[in-house]
Amino acid sequence: MSHWLQTKSWEEAAEAIKESKGVAILPVGSVEQHGFHLPVGTDSYVAITLAECAAEKTNALLVPPVWFGWSPHHMVRPGTITIRPEVLMDLTYDIMASLKAHGITKVVMINGHRIVNIIWMQMAAEKAQRELGITVQIFDPAYMSKDIVGKLGFGAVGHAEEVETSHMMYRYPDLVHLEKAKDNPIKPQDLYSVDPAYTHDTLCYVPSAYSHALENAKIAGGTTGEPSKSDVEKGKVYHDHLVERLVTVVRRLQEK
Amino acid sequence: MSHWLQTKSWEEAAEAIKESKGVAILPVGSVEQHGFHLPVGTDSYVAITLAECAAEKTNALLVPPVWFGWSPHHMVRPGTITIRPEVLMDLTYDIMASLKAHGITKVVMINGHRIVNIIWMQMAAEKAQRELGITVQIFDPAYMSKDIVGKLGFGAVGHAEEVETSHMMYRYPDLVHLEKAKDNPIKPQDLYSVDPAYTHDTLCYVPSAYSHALENAKIAGGTTGEPSKSDVEKGKVYHDHLVERLVTVVRRLQEK
Amino acid sequence: MSHWLQTKSWEEAAEAIKESKGVAILPVGSVEQHGFHLPVGTDSYVAITLAECAAEKTNALLVPPVWFGWSPHHMVRPGTITIRPEVLMDLTYDIMASLKAHGITKVVMINGHRIVNIIWMQMAAEKAQRELGITVQIFDPAYMSKDIVGKLGFGAVGHAEEVETSHMMYRYPDLVHLEKAKDNPIKPQDLYSVDPAYTHDTLCYVPSAYSHALENAKIAGGTTGEPSKSDVEKGKVYHDHLVERLVTVVRRLQEK
Amino acid sequence: MSHWLQTKSWEEAAEAIKESKGVAILPVGSVEQHGFHLPVGTDSYVAITLAECAAEKTNALLVPPVWFGWSPHHMVRPGTITIRPEVLMDLTYDIMASLKAHGITKVVMINGHRIVNIIWMQMAAEKAQRELGITVQIFDPAYMSKDIVGKLGFGAVGHAEEVETSHMMYRYPDLVHLEKAKDNPIKPQDLYSVDPAYTHDTLCYVPSAYSHALENAKIAGGTTGEPSKSDVEKGKVYHDHLVERLVTVVRRLQEK
Amino acid sequence: MSHWLQTKSWEEAAEAIKESKGVAILPVGSVEQHGFHLPVGTDSYVAITLAECAAEKTNALLVPPVWFGWSPHHMVRPGTITIRPEVLMDLTYDIMASLKAHGITKVVMINGHRIVNIIWMQMAAEKAQRELGITVQIFDPAYMSKDIVGKLGFGAVGHAEEVETSHMMYRYPDLVHLEKAKDNPIKPQDLYSVDPAYTHDTLCYVPSAYSHALENAKIAGGTTGEPSKSDVEKGKVYHDHLVERLVTVVRRLQEK
Amino acid sequence: MSHWLQTKSWEEAAEAIKESKGVAILPVGSVEQHGFHLPVGTDSYVAITLAECAAEKTNALLVPPVWFGWSPHHMVRPGTITIRPEVLMDLTYDIMASLKAHGITKVVMINGHRIVNIIWMQMAAEKAQRELGITVQIFDPAYMSKDIVGKLGFGAVGHAEEVETSHMMYRYPDLVHLEKAKDNPIKPQDLYSVDPAYTHDTLCYVPSAYSHALENAKIAGGTTGEPSKSDVEKGKVYHDHLVERLVTVVRRLQEK
Repeated sequence: MSHWLQTKSWEEAAEAIKESKGVAILPVGSVEQHGFHLPVGTDSYVAITLAECAAEKTNALLVPPVWFGWSPHHMVRPGTITIRPEVLMDLTYDIMASLKAHGITKVVMINGHRIVNIIWMQMAAEKAQRELGITVQIFDPAYMSKDIVGKLGFGAVGHAEEVETSHMMYRYPDLVHLEKAKDNPIKPQDLYSVDPAYTHDTLCYVPSAYSHALENAKIAGGTTGEPSKSDVEKGKVYHDHLVERLVTVVRRLQEK
Repeated sequence: MSHWLQTKSWEEAAEAIKESKGVAILPVGSVEQHGFHLPVGTDSYVAITLAECAAEKTNALLVPPVWFGWSPHHMVRPGTITIRPEVLMDLTYDIMASLKAHGITKVVMINGHRIVNIIWMQMAAEKAQRELGITVQIFDPAYMSKDIVGKLGFGAVGHAEEVETSHMMYRYPDLVHLEKAKDNPIKPQDLYSVDPAYTHDTLCYVPSAYSHALENAKIAGGTTGEPSKSDVEKGKVYHDHLVERLVTVVRRLQEK
Repeated sequence: MSHWLQTKSWEEAAEAIKESKGVAILPVGSVEQHGFHLPVGTDSYVAITLAECAAEKTNALLVPPVWFGWSPHHMVRPGTITIRPEVLMDLTYDIMASLKAHGITKVVMINGHRIVNIIWMQMAAEKAQRELGITVQIFDPAYMSKDIVGKLGFGAVGHAEEVETSHMMYRYPDLVHLEKAKDNPIKPQDLYSVDPAYTHDTLCYVPSAYSHALENAKIAGGTTGEPSKSDVEKGKVYHDHLVERLVTVVRRLQEK
Repeated sequence: MSHWLQTKSWEEAAEAIKESKGVAILPVGSVEQHGFHLPVGTDSYVAITLAECAAEKTNALLVPPVWFGWSPHHMVRPGTITIRPEVLMDLTYDIMASLKAHGITKVVMINGHRIVNIIWMQMAAEKAQRELGITVQIFDPAYMSKDIVGKLGFGAVGHAEEVETSHMMYRYPDLVHLEKAKDNPIKPQDLYSVDPAYTHDTLCYVPSAYSHALENAKIAGGTTGEPSKSDVEKGKVYHDHLVERLVTVVRRLQEK
Repeated sequence: MSHWLQTKSWEEAAEAIKESKGVAILPVGSVEQHGFHLPVGTDSYVAITLAECAAEKTNALLVPPVWFGWSPHHMVRPGTITIRPEVLMDLTYDIMASLKAHGITKVVMINGHRIVNIIWMQMAAEKAQRELGITVQIFDPAYMSKDIVGKLGFGAVGHAEEVETSHMMYRYPDLVHLEKAKDNPIKPQDLYSVDPAYTHDTLCYVPSAYSHALENAKIAGGTTGEPSKSDVEKGKVYHDHLVERLVTVVRRLQEK
Repeated sequence: MSHWLQTKSWEEAAEAIKESKGVAILPVGSVEQHGFHLPVGTDSYVAITLAECAAEKTNALLVPPVWFGWSPHHMVRPGTITIRPEVLMDLTYDIMASLKAHGITKVVMINGHRIVNIIWMQMAAEKAQRELGITVQIFDPAYMSKDIVGKLGFGAVGHAEEVETSHMMYRYPDLVHLEKAKDNPIKPQDLYSVDPAYTHDTLCYVPSAYSHALENAKIAGGTTGEPSKSDVEKGKVYHDHLVERLVTVVRRLQEK
């Protein structure tokens, strides 16, 4: 039976909130270019599949996904949709305020979009905690796969790279055109890396300026990383790792 | 092949935008109580199914749905999520601004939520037309079924009534629990009706106050109307009528 | 004796609020082009005269008029003033919040501007009901004359057409230059009408884009409809009908 | 013939703008308690009458009045309406932006409300000058009567005091109930005065806190000053002085 | 021992708040051109030195300075930084709200920037008084030196004139390059003066338009007034006068 | 000679901007509790001293510091001042927009407040890059000392811990009361760490809820970490490392 709120009558929703022990999962993604080989909805699909798999094991309530994210730098390629971060904050805040009114007191925001969405999510989470008196946690694949990515032989976090690609190959094979993928190996940059697992000195992340993103998009269709190294089996290990982590996070909240 | 933007790579998106002749459909719904028998996502499902059916015939581009609407009065029952109208305006404005950047010049916003969402959609549409220089039209089932609803023997527009229920029975039978439906016949009110087909003098629509909505929700689980009169065959006629209308609207925009 | 708040000392205002049984009328109009023959303040004058006539019979409190409305599409002709709808919402919200502090618990907003202002008024009314705990009703001549307009032989709602013109001829004859009026008969449009009495399928209203309004303004000086069919006697019947409706609306609120 | 914009057709408005040499007068007032003897609309009436008299002599365009001002401290008595200053800024900015579009390049804002409204008017004026490229001047009776008030034997600027009362007696005798007026002589305060003519050290003006305004309103019905010293003849001299000043200001702008 | 909050541990801050008897001083200035001879931080230095001297005598708590002010018109010369007034309002409101949470109930905002900053400070002060229930006073050198400036033989308030220059010479001699100063005597203007000590009829202050400020900046490097008349001894008298006034203001608040 | 903008006349500012090769440093800190032994201004002092030392070697322009940061969770102890992040974004955006107008095209924001301020700085930096066309980099001590902190034998990033304390001992010895410091060793938490050098899976950072921060503040006066391990010599090494990094960052920008 589906854990998605939208499929339930209000009586069923009331029952599901009780069974969730007050924990909801809100998947947030993006609609942005993901190279020649992945769909623009990749980040949202990632958030959705993690949410679904974890809900099956924990009965957490699934809130309809926020398909859109903050992607100003990816507007250099068609199909990208970018929403101002303050709008996304307001949107997710209102969602959480509504959930609170019905008994949800703990929310896990899943961020399929990685480093960019985290920024506004932190502001939304802080505000929701302070004003609504709920607990909000932000679950991001890039931060929750530090323990596994190296073991799998994947390179650093880039964009539409082997990590995302392997994951999509496992969960949404029909949406991946691996044959079109083009590599763009990540060149180490002095004092800067967007990989949360980076252990050296770095400036903080700032979304790329348009001109810089445009240059980059010309190299390999917007890909940063090496999708040719993608592997569906590794994608399964990666997915299972994240689901296990998410289940752990949800269960701890349920026990509070 | 899917017309949903999220399923496409950016190269496919570019191609789809060309084939759409610059027309996108943006489905908007709500997550709100719909009586004992319909899912809280009803309004979104209605918008989504109309969008999908019309896109198949016209190649209009389908934008990922906005699941959430403005539903302050339905917060009286669990599962309802309400977003401030100004946030929804900003969200859909940003979506349209992004689409514009990629060549979409005509947008049909489908409103599955009927009378309430129309308000902020009108403001979003006006702003998008003025600032982005695009054409925006608002397609609402209640306004686009005036020609057919009477013929089908349906009563006035209410909430979770025979019109919506028949439609959902035809398109999403698994999500309808007709056996739980409870009738709450619409009593004529002097100088007031929310039905756009109403031909007599009326005050303008204002979303119900919480206390009033709470009273109403106690009568038949939030239903206003007579879902017992629902009929899947009529649902089909109703759906086909709306799809035909939507196809007409899209084609005219494509010819501009 | 005047029912306008602005003419009263605060002691008289306190007395008037008591006599109003907690009901205030807030007239809202616009300053926008009304063809060659009507003044730009027409919509405001309409709201004001209805308010005055109904107050005389009910002792409702008259709040100073909001002369300005939302008229982006009429900026194509000089004299038009347009205020952003969010500003008008804030303005009227603050007026109602102030009234509430002094004992007004029911407000009738009269909209002389018809279909355009209704949009933001609905948002202002909902917010006032929810946050201030008052009752707000929106009284619009176009929606409150459906029962009479057909009988009078008037055509559909347009702009500066025979309905508005006849009304102004009856109430403000000095401001009407009928000799300058130019007809611009309303051509039926498939799947679209701004007339609230329209009984067929229609897209929802969106204020015209500038370019479209500019085209229209060239035809008959901004008039849509047939002012040559105007008649002061019909104007009187129309006015009396609306005043009677408004009196009914106010009295019901007073009895609550 | 009236100089009020609202009375004119758009063709007449175009003509009037030309005759105004690009100068409009925007009267702004307030609706707030004015003691036992003056109407709550006093500040607006003051702005309106000055505007009308100066327009007759200069052909400046009269814009419909903004009846409402910022009056948080006067909410202690019924009939007062207070609008947030940021809303008034937005409202008057939009008015000026609309006027600019039709050829008005110079605006005189008349402030009948004295010291309180000036604050947000300064911000609105600066923004209009910077963003619209127009010239905006703020004409305030209290600042434009420093040369005459002493000669007339009036005391310092208070509220509903002999200055305002004499002015209203001359221009709107029917709205003044002098027999109800109660004196509340202005006691000198060390290092503080709201009178713009005050020549000694002073803290800057801040609108009174509610509790302080409440105390004050109990003394003489909200009056600060000595209305018993009012005199219709002095009111005429005062009025003529202000009109002369306003005419000078308008003419200089017309000559620019 | 320093009275600046930033230098104290939280235990020391708690003690300092107690000793301040609930009174904090918030120095606000600007970073804007001040002619050839004064530093762009002049207004902030003025606020800081007054605050420091008065705190020594009263134990008022010193809040870290707001270096930046509203200076749109001085952007004509490099080094000027201008902040939108609504941002400055929000910033100082949040500072006061935080202080309130720790026991500060009375705040003196010192405005080193004179007439321009006062505008938004009045709005911030009113809001803080109303929403936080604290007392806020605005101390501005130009308004608090009316009693002394004439005696010292200084001319009217201009910009970087002999008053500011003498003050800076006394308190920050290293930052003054008197040898570069250029005079720009203030020419009387009919019906307009920015000097708060001006006793004749005047329009209200509006910050200069860019083009006007640009003209002015060409005359004497942005100076308005006669810095050649500056004198360090007079600067001392002026400073001592203001400190004495500020001490008086603080002590009265402490006694409340 | 000082590199601070505020100390310069506008002519000197113009010269300094030229010498800076278009690079400005904007130090941002916070005013928040830092345990029993460090001043509440610690974060600002850290940003200021790094800025000063790097400017000496690079001639970068120093912009007056933003003393205040976002510290909602530290309001549990007196002396803390928290500003809403959107206000800080607006403030720093306006500062950068003003700098841009005078020729600064590259800004390094130094964040003395570590992980919390980064959030809004990322949004401000993105907006400035996109709208102003400048380059903005965020320099944070915690992210720029990953290479050195382990070598020095310091523990993880906490609050007022041995890292900050050693740094303050070296640069501002008079403001440190080491004798009052109390240790609160950082306990490893499963799936969560705020240390940017943490190499394992983690949820993303969200500022603590008030209740949680209150609990924590009771343990060691708000300290998290082991200040007893502080050492002035290590503080020097740490400082020199950061200054060297900052100099590198500035020089690269100057060479662009």
